[in-house]
Amino acid sequence: MQFSVTILGSNSALPTSGKYPTAQVLNASERFFLIDCGEGTQMQLRKNRIKFSRINHIFISHLHGDHCFGLIGLISTYSLLGRTSDLYIYGHSDLEAVFAPQIKYFCPNLKYNVIFIPVDVEKSEVIFEDSAVEVSTIPLLHRKPTCGFLFKEKERERHIIRDAVDYYKVPVKELPRIKKGGDYISWEGTFVKNSLLTKPSSPPRSYAFCSDTAFCESIVPLIEGVDMLYHEATFSLSDKKLARETFHSTASEAAEIALKANAKKLLIGHFSTRYKDTNLLLNEAKNIFSNVSKATEGDIFEVPLKFP
Amino acid sequence: MQFSVTILGSNSALPTSGKYPTAQVLNASERFFLIDCGEGTQMQLRKNRIKFSRINHIFISHLHGDHCFGLIGLISTYSLLGRTSDLYIYGHSDLEAVFAPQIKYFCPNLKYNVIFIPVDVEKSEVIFEDSAVEVSTIPLLHRKPTCGFLFKEKERERHIIRDAVDYYKVPVKELPRIKKGGDYISWEGTFVKNSLLTKPSSPPRSYAFCSDTAFCESIVPLIEGVDMLYHEATFSLSDKKLARETFHSTASEAAEIALKANAKKLLIGHFSTRYKDTNLLLNEAKNIFSNVSKATEGDIFEVPLKFP
Repeated sequence: MQFSVTILGSNSALPTSGKYPTAQVLNASERFFLIDCGEGTQMQLRKNRIKFSRINHIFISHLHGDHCFGLIGLISTYSLLGRTSDLYIYGHSDLEAVFAPQIKYFCPNLKYNVIFIPVDVEKSEVIFEDSAVEVSTIPLLHRKPTCGFLFKEKERERHIIRDAVDYYKVPVKELPRIKKGGDYISWEGTFVKNSLLTKPSSPPRSYAFCSDTAFCESIVPLIEGVDMLYHEATFSLSDKKLARETFHSTASEAAEIALKANAKKLLIGHFSTRYKDTNLLLNEAKNIFSNVSKATEGDIFEVPLKFP
Repeated sequence: MQFSVTILGSNSALPTSGKYPTAQVLNASERFFLIDCGEGTQMQLRKNRIKFSRINHIFISHLHGDHCFGLIGLISTYSLLGRTSDLYIYGHSDLEAVFAPQIKYFCPNLKYNVIFIPVDVEKSEVIFEDSAVEVSTIPLLHRKPTCGFLFKEKERERHIIRDAVDYYKVPVKELPRIKKGGDYISWEGTFVKNSLLTKPSSPPRSYAFCSDTAFCESIVPLIEGVDMLYHEATFSLSDKKLARETFHSTASEAAEIALKANAKKLLIGHFSTRYKDTNLLLNEAKNIFSNVSKATEGDIFEVPLKFP
């Protein structure tokens, strides 16, 4: 089961050649979540060979153009492709107010529902859940109401040890209970501890997306121990004042958050176009937190399964 | 003085990898006109190294998304770049109704004016004019109210023959009149015909943009003798029925228009994604009109000056 994020766009607001504004796709156990949707997202989906039809849930961090101008094009393309299944879009309540009139004008004969799910960006709460994955909000600190998103796999059931189950002659109907951690008592009264019958499954994996935000320590407990953290790193240390003024972060601040939250890996992006060589930002982050990568268009970052 | 069109996007509605929806930039004597503005136009401007600040006039043929979804991103980027000069956008009156609310929401502190010029797409009239260039509308036949645009250089003044002017001792103050075609009578009464004093200048060049449209012969007199014609060619001959139903043209029909209008050169584009090899469409057009090229992203087509 995959758990990987594909970077479709990682630029800050101003486009540069070959770069795109923010958009990512998380493949969490074959659920494809689109995170932010800057202009050109649909072209980038195509280029990265991600099937449009796999996406049913779109999460928009905030209503700055470089995070949502690609929405109307994508919605329109879905219509041309004959989509019929519901499309859920999570974000600030303004999202529907701004995009519903556009949908009405440009896609009058939509054959599928676009369902806007308003999100309270000021508190952390679960906004999506299915049998395998849970998504919750991460309140951020920006010029517009903004939240990040934490994607977490749910605990998996324990793995049955086939030989042990055969040896203790455990009836099949007992297995669902045992997979959940239950012990077994045979009809003769033999007590068999669960740990003799099962192995623990791989621990759930997690991904946190935090863009755009000023340095915001209050997110640390929300993302504690996260496997992979994307945190914006718009500015260099030397432009800290600018970061403050614009409610963005420096690369060092992104790394500090990763360190404090015990993240396993950090991805940084949303670099200001003022830096010709963004390795400057990478190195600033590495001074604080070693496992950092730049998120670049086309990159795929995976969190592998851990078999303990 | 250049007269050339750069193709930024030439795809039909559905995006494919590396292709963009319709957008072109015409450089007419150093005036840069943006024609249509599909999603990703600003990235394509960047890629093709066209300075954003050179564009002051944008012409939108119609309000299908693949011809205008890039507008809001471009307007927003202009704002971030600190633009102060007026931006004129010509198109159907709905354009302002649809885009003004978006501008208000996403670019609340715009430091420049976006001036929407409503266009009556049902008649041919001059909608822009300066000292060197004139732009007029070409009513087209599509599912939404649509017009093409004809860009024409104005007649240039005749070139002075320096030796002749010296020989006849023509005073400097007479030259502006003579450049306009006037004859010269000296103070002694000598009559000098204009053709002895001047050479004709290069004839004005012209470019017609016609997308999207069903086969529409009524445009022929409007574009008679045009130097370069872009005409959509969405379908192959074998899909003529589909062309009828969707109010698009076949490649042969585009060529037929070029032939009837005595166009010097034809560009075709807006190909349906159903054709794996678009040379099929090129060849169908070539069967009728020889000087055809496919308009592909990054292509620059120039109409050179003719010195008769």
